[in-house]
Amino acid sequence: MISVVIVGFGNVGQHLYRAFKNAIDVDVVQVFSRSKLDNTEDIAITHDLNDLAKADLYIIAVPDDAIAEVSGQLPFKDRLVTHTSGSVAMKALSNSNRKGVFYPLQTFSKDHEVDFKEIPICFEAQENQDAELLESLGEMISEKVVQIPSEERAQLHLAAVFVNNFTNHLYHLSEAYLTENGVDFDLLKPLIKETARKIEGLSPNDAQTGPAKRDDKMTIAKHLDLLKNDYYKKIYKTLTQSISRTHGKKL
Amino acid sequence: MISVVIVGFGNVGQHLYRAFKNAIDVDVVQVFSRSKLDNTEDIAITHDLNDLAKADLYIIAVPDDAIAEVSGQLPFKDRLVTHTSGSVAMKALSNSNRKGVFYPLQTFSKDHEVDFKEIPICFEAQENQDAELLESLGEMISEKVVQIPSEERAQLHLAAVFVNNFTNHLYHLSEAYLTENGVDFDLLKPLIKETARKIEGLSPNDAQTGPAKRDDKMTIAKHLDLLKNDYYKKIYKTLTQSISRTHGKKL
Repeated sequence: MISVVIVGFGNVGQHLYRAFKNAIDVDVVQVFSRSKLDNTEDIAITHDLNDLAKADLYIIAVPDDAIAEVSGQLPFKDRLVTHTSGSVAMKALSNSNRKGVFYPLQTFSKDHEVDFKEIPICFEAQENQDAELLESLGEMISEKVVQIPSEERAQLHLAAVFVNNFTNHLYHLSEAYLTENGVDFDLLKPLIKETARKIEGLSPNDAQTGPAKRDDKMTIAKHLDLLKNDYYKKIYKTLTQSISRTHGKKL
Repeated sequence: MISVVIVGFGNVGQHLYRAFKNAIDVDVVQVFSRSKLDNTEDIAITHDLNDLAKADLYIIAVPDDAIAEVSGQLPFKDRLVTHTSGSVAMKALSNSNRKGVFYPLQTFSKDHEVDFKEIPICFEAQENQDAELLESLGEMISEKVVQIPSEERAQLHLAAVFVNNFTNHLYHLSEAYLTENGVDFDLLKPLIKETARKIEGLSPNDAQTGPAKRDDKMTIAKHLDLLKNDYYKKIYKTLTQSISRTHGKKL
Protein backbone atom coordinates (compact mmCIF):
# COMPACT_ATOMS: atom_id res chain seq x y z
CA MET A 1 0.00 0.00 0.00
CA ILE A 2 1.37 3.39 -1.01
CA SER A 3 0.04 6.34 0.97
CA VAL A 4 -0.32 9.62 -0.88
CA VAL A 5 -1.16 13.22 -0.03
CA ILE A 6 -2.31 15.36 -2.95
CA VAL A 7 -1.38 19.02 -2.54
CA GLY A 8 -3.62 21.12 -4.79
CA PHE A 9 -7.01 20.08 -6.04
CA GLY A 10 -7.45 21.59 -9.49
CA ASN A 11 -7.97 19.58 -12.69
CA VAL A 12 -4.89 17.38 -12.36
CA GLY A 13 -5.28 16.87 -8.61
CA GLN A 14 -8.90 15.83 -8.95
CA HIS A 15 -8.28 13.45 -11.84
CA LEU A 16 -5.36 11.86 -9.98
CA TYR A 17 -7.50 11.56 -6.87
CA ARG A 18 -10.20 9.65 -8.75
CA ALA A 19 -7.64 7.41 -10.46
CA PHE A 20 -6.02 6.54 -7.11
CA LYS A 21 -9.42 5.96 -5.50
CA ASN A 22 -10.18 3.34 -8.17
CA ALA A 23 -6.79 1.67 -7.79
CA ILE A 24 -5.86 -1.11 -5.42
CA ASP A 25 -2.95 -0.53 -3.05
CA VAL A 26 -3.06 3.27 -3.11
CA ASP A 27 -4.38 5.19 -0.14
CA VAL A 28 -5.01 8.90 -0.59
CA VAL A 29 -4.74 9.83 3.05
CA GLN A 30 -5.36 13.54 2.54
CA VAL A 31 -5.94 16.33 0.07
CA PHE A 32 -4.80 19.91 0.52
CA SER A 33 -6.85 22.61 -1.15
CA ARG A 34 -6.58 26.36 -0.72
CA SER A 35 -10.26 26.85 -1.54
CA LYS A 36 -13.41 25.34 -0.03
CA LEU A 37 -14.74 22.37 -1.99
CA ASP A 38 -18.23 21.05 -2.70
CA ASN A 39 -19.21 17.39 -2.56
CA THR A 40 -16.20 16.27 -0.63
CA GLU A 41 -17.88 14.27 2.13
CA ASP A 42 -15.52 11.33 1.86
CA ILE A 43 -12.28 13.22 1.21
CA ALA A 44 -9.99 13.98 4.15
CA ILE A 45 -9.28 17.55 3.29
CA THR A 46 -7.14 20.26 4.85
CA HIS A 47 -6.74 23.92 4.00
CA ASP A 48 -3.58 24.35 6.05
CA LEU A 49 -0.18 23.09 4.87
CA ASN A 50 0.90 22.79 8.51
CA ASP A 51 -1.73 20.08 9.02
CA LEU A 52 -0.45 17.76 6.30
CA ALA A 53 -0.67 14.09 7.22
CA LYS A 54 2.22 11.67 7.06
CA ALA A 55 2.49 9.76 3.76
CA ASP A 56 4.97 7.92 1.54
CA LEU A 57 4.56 10.56 -1.10
CA TYR A 58 3.34 14.14 -1.55
CA ILE A 59 2.09 15.07 -5.01
CA ILE A 60 2.04 18.81 -5.63
CA ALA A 61 -0.57 19.51 -8.30
CA VAL A 62 -0.63 23.30 -8.42
CA PRO A 63 0.00 25.79 -11.26
CA ASP A 64 3.57 25.63 -12.60
CA ASP A 65 4.62 28.98 -11.20
CA ALA A 66 3.50 28.01 -7.65
CA ILE A 67 5.35 24.66 -7.45
CA ALA A 68 8.64 25.99 -6.04
CA GLU A 69 6.87 28.15 -3.47
CA VAL A 70 4.46 25.45 -2.26
CA SER A 71 7.26 22.89 -2.03
CA GLY A 72 9.20 25.36 0.13
CA GLN A 73 6.26 25.77 2.51
CA LEU A 74 5.95 22.10 3.42
CA PRO A 75 6.51 21.76 7.19
CA PHE A 76 8.69 18.62 7.08
CA LYS A 77 12.02 17.35 5.75
CA ASP A 78 13.44 14.36 3.87
CA ARG A 79 10.15 13.03 2.57
CA LEU A 80 9.39 12.29 -1.08
CA VAL A 81 7.80 15.33 -2.74
CA THR A 82 6.83 15.33 -6.42
CA HIS A 83 5.12 17.66 -8.84
CA THR A 84 2.94 16.82 -11.85
CA SER A 85 4.10 19.39 -14.37
CA GLY A 86 5.39 18.75 -17.86
CA SER A 87 7.50 21.84 -18.10
CA VAL A 88 8.95 22.42 -14.63
CA ALA A 89 12.31 20.81 -13.85
CA MET A 90 12.56 18.43 -10.89
CA LYS A 91 15.22 20.64 -9.36
CA ALA A 92 12.69 23.47 -8.97
CA LEU A 93 11.35 21.63 -5.92
CA SER A 94 12.65 22.69 -2.52
CA ASN A 95 15.86 21.06 -1.32
CA SER A 96 14.26 20.28 2.06
CA ASN A 97 12.76 17.05 0.74
CA ARG A 98 13.59 14.22 -1.66
CA LYS A 99 12.53 15.25 -5.16
CA GLY A 100 10.53 13.51 -7.84
CA VAL A 101 8.15 14.09 -10.74
CA PHE A 102 4.91 12.26 -11.53
CA TYR A 103 3.65 13.71 -14.83
CA PRO A 104 0.52 12.28 -16.45
CA LEU A 105 0.82 13.20 -20.13
CA GLN A 106 -2.77 14.09 -20.89
CA THR A 107 -5.19 16.99 -21.19
CA PHE A 108 -7.59 17.27 -18.29
CA SER A 109 -10.85 19.16 -18.18
CA LYS A 110 -13.45 19.45 -15.48
CA ASP A 111 -16.47 17.19 -16.05
CA HIS A 112 -14.70 15.12 -18.69
CA GLU A 113 -13.54 11.72 -17.53
CA VAL A 114 -10.42 10.17 -19.04
CA ASP A 115 -9.23 6.58 -18.98
CA PHE A 116 -6.07 6.71 -16.90
CA LYS A 117 -4.95 3.29 -18.09
CA GLU A 118 -4.04 4.81 -21.46
CA ILE A 119 -2.26 7.85 -20.06
CA PRO A 120 1.55 7.72 -20.10
CA ILE A 121 2.98 8.51 -16.68
CA CYS A 122 6.41 10.11 -16.97
CA PHE A 123 8.27 9.89 -13.69
CA GLU A 124 11.71 10.69 -12.36
CA ALA A 125 13.31 10.89 -8.93
CA GLN A 126 16.63 11.81 -7.38
CA GLU A 127 16.94 8.51 -5.57
CA ASN A 128 16.52 5.02 -7.02
CA GLN A 129 14.24 3.86 -4.26
CA ASP A 130 11.92 6.80 -4.86
CA ALA A 131 11.95 6.13 -8.60
CA GLU A 132 10.84 2.57 -7.86
CA LEU A 133 8.00 3.80 -5.68
CA LEU A 134 6.82 6.25 -8.37
CA GLU A 135 7.01 3.51 -10.98
CA SER A 136 4.92 1.18 -8.82
CA LEU A 137 2.39 3.91 -8.16
CA GLY A 138 2.21 4.73 -11.88
CA GLU A 139 1.63 1.09 -12.76
CA MET A 140 -1.35 0.94 -10.43
CA ILE A 141 -3.23 3.44 -12.59
CA SER A 142 -1.61 3.29 -16.05
CA GLU A 143 -0.36 0.74 -18.55
CA LYS A 144 2.40 3.05 -19.80
CA VAL A 145 4.86 4.20 -17.15
CA VAL A 146 8.23 5.58 -18.26
CA GLN A 147 11.22 7.14 -16.57
CA ILE A 148 11.96 10.45 -18.32
CA PRO A 149 14.55 13.01 -17.21
CA SER A 150 13.54 16.67 -16.83
CA GLU A 151 15.00 17.83 -20.12
CA GLU A 152 13.19 15.22 -22.20
CA ARG A 153 10.01 15.85 -20.24
CA ALA A 154 10.22 19.53 -21.18
CA GLN A 155 10.59 18.51 -24.85
CA LEU A 156 7.61 16.17 -24.56
CA HIS A 157 5.57 18.93 -22.99
CA LEU A 158 6.50 21.32 -25.78
CA ALA A 159 5.52 18.73 -28.40
CA ALA A 160 2.28 18.20 -26.46
CA VAL A 161 1.52 21.90 -26.87
CA PHE A 162 1.74 21.39 -30.65
CA VAL A 163 -0.50 18.31 -30.82
CA ASN A 164 -2.97 19.39 -28.16
CA ASN A 165 -3.14 23.16 -27.56
CA PHE A 166 -2.41 24.19 -31.14
CA THR A 167 -4.52 21.44 -32.67
CA ASN A 168 -7.46 22.28 -30.44
CA HIS A 169 -7.07 25.90 -31.43
CA LEU A 170 -7.29 24.91 -35.10
CA TYR A 171 -10.55 23.12 -34.23
CA HIS A 172 -11.73 26.33 -32.61
CA LEU A 173 -10.80 28.50 -35.59
CA SER A 174 -12.64 26.11 -37.91
CA GLU A 175 -15.70 26.14 -35.73
CA ALA A 176 -15.69 29.95 -35.48
CA TYR A 177 -15.24 30.28 -39.26
CA LEU A 178 -18.00 27.81 -40.13
CA THR A 179 -20.42 29.19 -37.55
CA GLU A 180 -19.86 32.67 -38.95
CA ASN A 181 -20.82 31.29 -42.36
CA GLY A 182 -23.81 29.29 -41.14
CA VAL A 183 -22.22 25.89 -41.79
CA ASP A 184 -22.50 23.03 -39.26
CA PHE A 185 -19.13 22.35 -37.58
CA ASP A 186 -20.33 18.85 -36.62
CA LEU A 187 -19.79 17.80 -40.24
CA LEU A 188 -16.05 18.00 -39.54
CA LYS A 189 -16.07 15.76 -36.47
CA PRO A 190 -15.62 12.44 -38.30
CA LEU A 191 -12.66 13.99 -40.14
CA ILE A 192 -11.15 15.22 -36.87
CA LYS A 193 -11.49 11.77 -35.33
CA GLU A 194 -10.03 10.04 -38.37
CA THR A 195 -7.11 12.49 -38.57
CA ALA A 196 -6.10 11.47 -35.04
CA ARG A 197 -6.84 7.78 -35.61
CA LYS A 198 -4.91 7.58 -38.86
CA ILE A 199 -1.51 8.17 -37.30
CA GLU A 200 -1.89 5.22 -34.97
CA GLY A 201 -0.65 3.08 -37.82
CA LEU A 202 0.83 5.60 -40.24
CA SER A 203 3.53 8.21 -39.69
CA PRO A 204 2.14 11.77 -39.85
CA ASN A 205 4.51 12.41 -42.71
CA ASP A 206 2.90 9.64 -44.76
CA ALA A 207 -0.59 10.65 -43.65
CA GLN A 208 -0.22 14.21 -44.97
CA THR A 209 -2.65 15.22 -47.71
CA GLY A 210 -4.09 18.49 -49.00
CA PRO A 211 -3.32 21.43 -51.27
CA ALA A 212 -0.04 22.43 -49.56
CA LYS A 213 1.35 18.90 -49.87
CA ARG A 214 0.26 18.70 -53.54
CA ASP A 215 1.56 22.23 -54.19
CA ASP A 216 -1.95 23.01 -55.50
CA LYS A 217 -1.55 26.78 -55.90
CA MET A 218 -5.05 27.27 -57.32
CA THR A 219 -6.78 25.85 -54.23
CA ILE A 220 -4.43 27.71 -51.88
CA ALA A 221 -5.28 30.99 -53.64
CA LYS A 222 -9.00 30.20 -53.40
CA HIS A 223 -8.69 29.50 -49.69
CA LEU A 224 -6.81 32.73 -49.00
CA ASP A 225 -9.52 34.55 -50.91
CA LEU A 226 -12.26 32.91 -48.81
CA LEU A 227 -10.51 33.91 -45.57
CA LYS A 228 -11.46 37.53 -45.02
CA ASN A 229 -9.82 37.67 -41.60
CA ASP A 230 -6.10 38.54 -41.56
CA TYR A 231 -5.40 36.42 -38.47
CA TYR A 232 -6.77 33.36 -40.23
CA LYS A 233 -4.78 34.22 -43.36
CA LYS A 234 -1.57 34.43 -41.34
CA ILE A 235 -2.11 31.00 -39.79
CA TYR A 236 -3.08 29.52 -43.14
CA LYS A 237 0.05 30.92 -44.81
CA THR A 238 2.41 29.96 -42.00
CA LEU A 239 1.27 26.34 -41.89
CA THR A 240 1.00 26.03 -45.67
CA GLN A 241 4.59 27.24 -46.05
CA SER A 242 5.72 24.79 -43.39
CA ILE A 243 4.00 21.87 -45.15
CA SER A 244 5.51 22.92 -48.50
CA ARG A 245 8.89 23.12 -46.92
CA THR A 246 8.55 19.71 -45.28
CA HIS A 247 7.24 17.93 -48.33
CA GLY A 248 9.04 19.88 -51.01
CA LYS A 249 12.54 19.87 -49.63
CA LYS A 250 12.35 16.56 -47.76
CA LEU A 251 13.83 17.80 -44.48
CA MET B 1 -30.62 -0.12 -58.24
CA ILE B 2 -28.42 2.87 -59.10
CA SER B 3 -25.78 2.24 -61.75
CA VAL B 4 -22.53 4.15 -61.42
CA VAL B 5 -19.40 4.68 -63.49
CA ILE B 6 -16.36 5.92 -61.56
CA VAL B 7 -14.06 8.06 -63.69
CA GLY B 8 -10.63 8.14 -62.06
CA PHE B 9 -9.29 5.51 -59.71
CA GLY B 10 -7.02 7.27 -57.23
CA ASN B 11 -7.61 7.35 -53.47
CA VAL B 12 -11.15 8.71 -53.55
CA GLY B 13 -12.20 6.60 -56.54
CA GLN B 14 -10.94 3.41 -54.94
CA HIS B 15 -12.52 4.11 -51.56
CA LEU B 16 -15.85 4.95 -53.20
CA TYR B 17 -15.61 1.80 -55.30
CA ARG B 18 -15.20 -0.37 -52.20
CA ALA B 19 -18.01 1.42 -50.37
CA PHE B 20 -20.39 0.92 -53.32
CA LYS B 21 -19.34 -2.72 -53.68
CA ASN B 22 -20.39 -3.33 -50.07
CA ALA B 23 -23.70 -1.50 -50.51
CA ILE B 24 -26.98 -2.98 -51.62
CA ASP B 25 -28.68 -1.39 -54.64
CA VAL B 26 -25.57 0.18 -56.15
CA ASP B 27 -24.00 -1.32 -59.26
CA VAL B 28 -20.57 -0.01 -60.25
CA VAL B 29 -20.83 -0.94 -63.91
CA GLN B 30 -17.41 0.38 -64.88
CA VAL B 31 -14.28 2.16 -63.73
CA PHE B 32 -12.16 4.44 -65.90
CA SER B 33 -8.48 4.68 -65.12
CA ARG B 34 -5.74 6.33 -67.12
CA SER B 35 -3.13 3.94 -65.75
CA LYS B 36 -2.96 0.14 -65.69
CA LEU B 37 -4.10 -1.37 -62.42
CA ASP B 38 -3.04 -4.42 -60.44
CA ASN B 39 -5.45 -6.82 -58.75
CA THR B 40 -8.48 -5.71 -60.66
CA GLU B 41 -9.81 -9.10 -61.85
CA ASP B 42 -13.38 -8.38 -60.96
CA ILE B 43 -13.53 -4.70 -61.96
CA ALA B 44 -14.88 -3.79 -65.38
CA ILE B 45 -12.20 -1.33 -66.31
CA THR B 46 -11.60 0.89 -69.32
CA HIS B 47 -8.69 3.14 -70.21
CA ASP B 48 -10.60 4.98 -72.94
CA LEU B 49 -13.21 7.64 -72.18
CA ASN B 50 -14.90 6.83 -75.48
CA ASP B 51 -15.72 3.35 -74.17
CA LEU B 52 -17.65 4.52 -71.13
CA ALA B 53 -20.66 2.35 -70.33
CA LYS B 54 -24.17 3.71 -69.84
CA ALA B 55 -25.08 4.48 -66.23
CA ASP B 56 -27.39 6.60 -64.08
CA LEU B 57 -24.45 8.54 -62.77
CA TYR B 58 -20.80 9.30 -63.60
CA ILE B 59 -18.57 10.17 -60.69
CA ILE B 60 -15.42 12.02 -61.70
CA ALA B 61 -12.79 11.37 -59.04
CA VAL B 62 -9.70 13.01 -60.51
CA PRO B 63 -7.40 15.79 -59.22
CA ASP B 64 -9.20 19.13 -58.84
CA ASP B 65 -7.44 20.80 -61.74
CA ALA B 66 -8.41 18.00 -64.15
CA ILE B 67 -12.16 17.96 -63.35
CA ALA B 68 -13.24 20.55 -65.94
CA GLU B 69 -11.15 18.98 -68.67
CA VAL B 70 -12.25 15.39 -68.03
CA SER B 71 -15.90 16.41 -67.81
CA GLY B 72 -15.51 18.11 -71.21
CA GLN B 73 -14.10 14.93 -72.75
CA LEU B 74 -17.07 12.71 -71.93
CA PRO B 75 -18.53 11.42 -75.23
CA PHE B 76 -22.21 11.84 -74.33
CA LYS B 77 -24.77 14.48 -73.41
CA ASP B 78 -27.50 15.14 -70.86
CA ARG B 79 -26.44 12.50 -68.38
CA LEU B 80 -25.76 13.11 -64.68
CA VAL B 81 -22.07 13.87 -64.13
CA THR B 82 -20.67 14.66 -60.68
CA HIS B 83 -17.30 15.34 -59.14
CA THR B 84 -16.06 14.51 -55.63
CA SER B 85 -14.05 17.61 -54.79
CA GLY B 86 -14.49 19.82 -51.75
CA SER B 87 -13.13 22.94 -53.34
CA VAL B 88 -14.28 22.87 -56.97
CA ALA B 89 -17.63 24.55 -57.76
CA MET B 90 -20.34 22.46 -59.42
CA LYS B 91 -20.42 24.88 -62.34
CA ALA B 92 -16.83 23.93 -63.25
CA LEU B 93 -18.26 20.76 -64.84
CA SER B 94 -18.92 20.82 -68.58
CA ASN B 95 -22.31 22.16 -69.71
CA SER B 96 -22.82 19.13 -71.96
CA ASN B 97 -24.26 17.09 -69.08
CA ARG B 98 -26.42 17.54 -65.97
CA LYS B 99 -24.20 18.62 -63.11
CA GLY B 100 -23.85 17.42 -59.56
CA VAL B 101 -21.40 17.00 -56.69
CA PHE B 102 -20.86 13.98 -54.44
CA TYR B 103 -18.25 14.99 -51.86
CA PRO B 104 -17.29 12.56 -49.09
CA LEU B 105 -15.84 14.75 -46.32
CA GLN B 106 -12.96 12.60 -45.18
CA THR B 107 -9.23 12.05 -45.58
CA PHE B 108 -8.36 9.02 -47.67
CA SER B 109 -5.06 7.19 -47.79
CA LYS B 110 -4.03 4.10 -49.67
CA ASP B 111 -4.01 0.96 -47.50
CA HIS B 112 -6.02 2.60 -44.74
CA GLU B 113 -9.67 1.57 -44.59
CA VAL B 114 -12.29 4.01 -43.37
CA ASP B 115 -15.83 3.39 -42.19
CA PHE B 116 -17.96 5.09 -44.82
CA LYS B 117 -21.04 5.01 -42.59
CA GLU B 118 -19.54 7.82 -40.50
CA ILE B 119 -18.43 9.96 -43.43
CA PRO B 120 -20.63 12.96 -44.23
CA ILE B 121 -21.60 13.00 -47.90
CA CYS B 122 -22.16 16.54 -49.14
CA PHE B 123 -24.14 16.55 -52.36
CA GLU B 124 -25.72 19.06 -54.69
CA ALA B 125 -27.24 18.95 -58.17
CA GLN B 126 -28.71 21.35 -60.70
CA GLU B 127 -31.94 19.39 -60.96
CA ASN B 128 -34.15 18.17 -58.13
CA GLN B 129 -34.44 14.68 -59.50
CA ASP B 130 -30.66 14.37 -59.66
CA ALA B 131 -30.36 15.69 -56.11
CA GLU B 132 -32.75 12.96 -55.00
CA LEU B 133 -30.70 10.29 -56.74
CA LEU B 134 -27.47 11.56 -55.14
CA GLU B 135 -29.15 11.64 -51.75
CA SER B 136 -30.35 8.04 -52.17
CA LEU B 137 -26.90 6.94 -53.29
CA GLY B 138 -25.30 8.71 -50.34
CA GLU B 139 -27.69 7.06 -47.89
CA MET B 140 -26.67 3.64 -49.18
CA ILE B 141 -23.14 4.14 -47.89
CA SER B 142 -23.36 6.81 -45.17
CA GLU B 143 -25.52 7.77 -42.21
CA LYS B 144 -24.91 11.49 -42.73
CA VAL B 145 -25.97 12.84 -46.12
CA VAL B 146 -26.48 16.57 -46.53
CA GLN B 147 -27.28 18.91 -49.39
CA ILE B 148 -24.67 21.67 -49.42
CA PRO B 149 -24.31 24.38 -52.08
CA SER B 150 -20.90 24.98 -53.70
CA GLU B 151 -20.02 28.05 -51.65
CA GLU B 152 -20.63 26.36 -48.30
CA ARG B 153 -18.82 23.26 -49.52
CA ALA B 154 -15.78 25.42 -50.29
CA GLN B 155 -15.94 26.83 -46.75
CA LEU B 156 -16.22 23.32 -45.30
CA HIS B 157 -13.25 22.22 -47.35
CA LEU B 158 -11.20 25.16 -46.14
CA ALA B 159 -12.11 24.38 -42.53
CA ALA B 160 -11.19 20.75 -43.23
CA VAL B 161 -7.72 21.92 -44.24
CA PHE B 162 -7.36 23.47 -40.78
CA VAL B 163 -8.54 20.43 -38.81
CA ASN B 164 -6.92 17.80 -41.01
CA ASN B 165 -3.97 19.05 -43.09
CA PHE B 166 -2.72 21.58 -40.55
CA THR B 167 -3.38 19.34 -37.56
CA ASN B 168 -1.60 16.43 -39.17
CA HIS B 169 1.32 18.72 -39.93
CA LEU B 170 1.50 19.67 -36.25
CA TYR B 171 1.68 15.93 -35.49
CA HIS B 172 4.51 15.69 -37.98
CA LEU B 173 6.43 18.62 -36.52
CA SER B 174 6.09 17.10 -33.05
CA GLU B 175 7.31 13.75 -34.26
CA ALA B 176 10.27 15.29 -36.08
CA TYR B 177 11.19 17.38 -33.03
CA LEU B 178 10.96 14.49 -30.57
CA THR B 179 12.80 12.07 -32.84
CA GLU B 180 15.60 14.61 -33.23
CA ASN B 181 15.83 14.67 -29.43
CA GLY B 182 15.61 10.92 -28.95
CA VAL B 183 12.17 10.99 -27.32
CA ASP B 184 9.44 8.48 -28.25
CA PHE B 185 6.62 10.16 -30.23
CA ASP B 186 4.27 7.29 -29.31
CA LEU B 187 4.00 8.80 -25.82
CA LEU B 188 1.91 11.57 -27.39
CA LYS B 189 -0.59 9.30 -29.12
CA PRO B 190 -3.06 9.00 -26.23
CA LEU B 191 -3.04 12.80 -25.96
CA ILE B 192 -3.65 13.16 -29.69
CA LYS B 193 -6.58 10.75 -29.51
CA GLU B 194 -8.05 12.45 -26.46
CA THR B 195 -7.68 15.93 -28.02
CA ALA B 196 -9.87 14.81 -30.91
CA ARG B 197 -12.28 12.86 -28.68
CA LYS B 198 -12.75 15.67 -26.20
CA ILE B 199 -14.53 18.00 -28.61
CA GLU B 200 -17.24 15.44 -29.31
CA GLY B 201 -18.95 16.69 -26.21
CA LEU B 202 -17.19 19.99 -25.50
CA SER B 203 -16.74 23.04 -27.72
CA PRO B 204 -13.08 23.54 -28.78
CA ASN B 205 -13.23 26.91 -27.10
CA ASP B 206 -14.06 25.30 -23.74
CA ALA B 207 -11.56 22.49 -24.33
CA GLN B 208 -8.63 24.88 -24.76
CA THR B 209 -5.82 24.52 -22.21
CA GLY B 210 -2.12 25.32 -22.14
CA PRO B 211 0.34 28.15 -21.56
CA ALA B 212 -1.09 30.47 -24.25
CA LYS B 213 -4.60 30.20 -22.81
CA ARG B 214 -3.26 30.79 -19.27
CA ASP B 215 -1.03 33.62 -20.48
CA ASP B 216 1.85 31.73 -18.84
CA LYS B 217 4.72 33.82 -20.18
CA MET B 218 7.39 31.85 -18.34
CA THR B 219 6.49 28.56 -20.03
CA ILE B 220 6.12 30.23 -23.42
CA ALA B 221 9.62 31.72 -23.08
CA LYS B 222 11.01 28.30 -22.06
CA HIS B 223 9.38 26.69 -25.10
CA LEU B 224 10.77 29.28 -27.50
CA ASP B 225 14.16 28.71 -25.97
CA LEU B 226 13.90 24.93 -26.47
CA LEU B 227 12.95 25.39 -30.15
CA LYS B 228 16.23 25.97 -31.93
CA ASN B 229 14.62 25.88 -35.37
CA ASP B 230 13.23 29.21 -36.65
CA TYR B 231 10.44 27.56 -38.62
CA TYR B 232 9.17 25.90 -35.46
CA LYS B 233 9.49 29.15 -33.56
CA LYS B 234 7.40 30.96 -36.15
CA ILE B 235 4.60 28.40 -35.94
CA TYR B 236 4.76 28.42 -32.14
CA LYS B 237 4.52 32.20 -32.01
CA THR B 238 1.78 32.50 -34.62
CA LEU B 239 -0.49 29.97 -32.92
CA THR B 240 0.30 31.23 -29.42
CA GLN B 241 -0.66 34.78 -30.45
CA SER B 242 -3.85 33.50 -32.00
CA ILE B 243 -4.81 31.60 -28.83
CA SER B 244 -4.02 34.68 -26.70
CA ARG B 245 -6.12 36.79 -28.98
CA THR B 246 -9.04 34.35 -28.87
CA HIS B 247 -8.99 33.81 -25.14
CA GLY B 248 -7.79 37.21 -24.04
CA LYS B 249 -10.07 39.42 -26.04
CA LYS B 250 -13.07 37.06 -26.17
CA LEU B 251 -13.71 37.35 -29.91
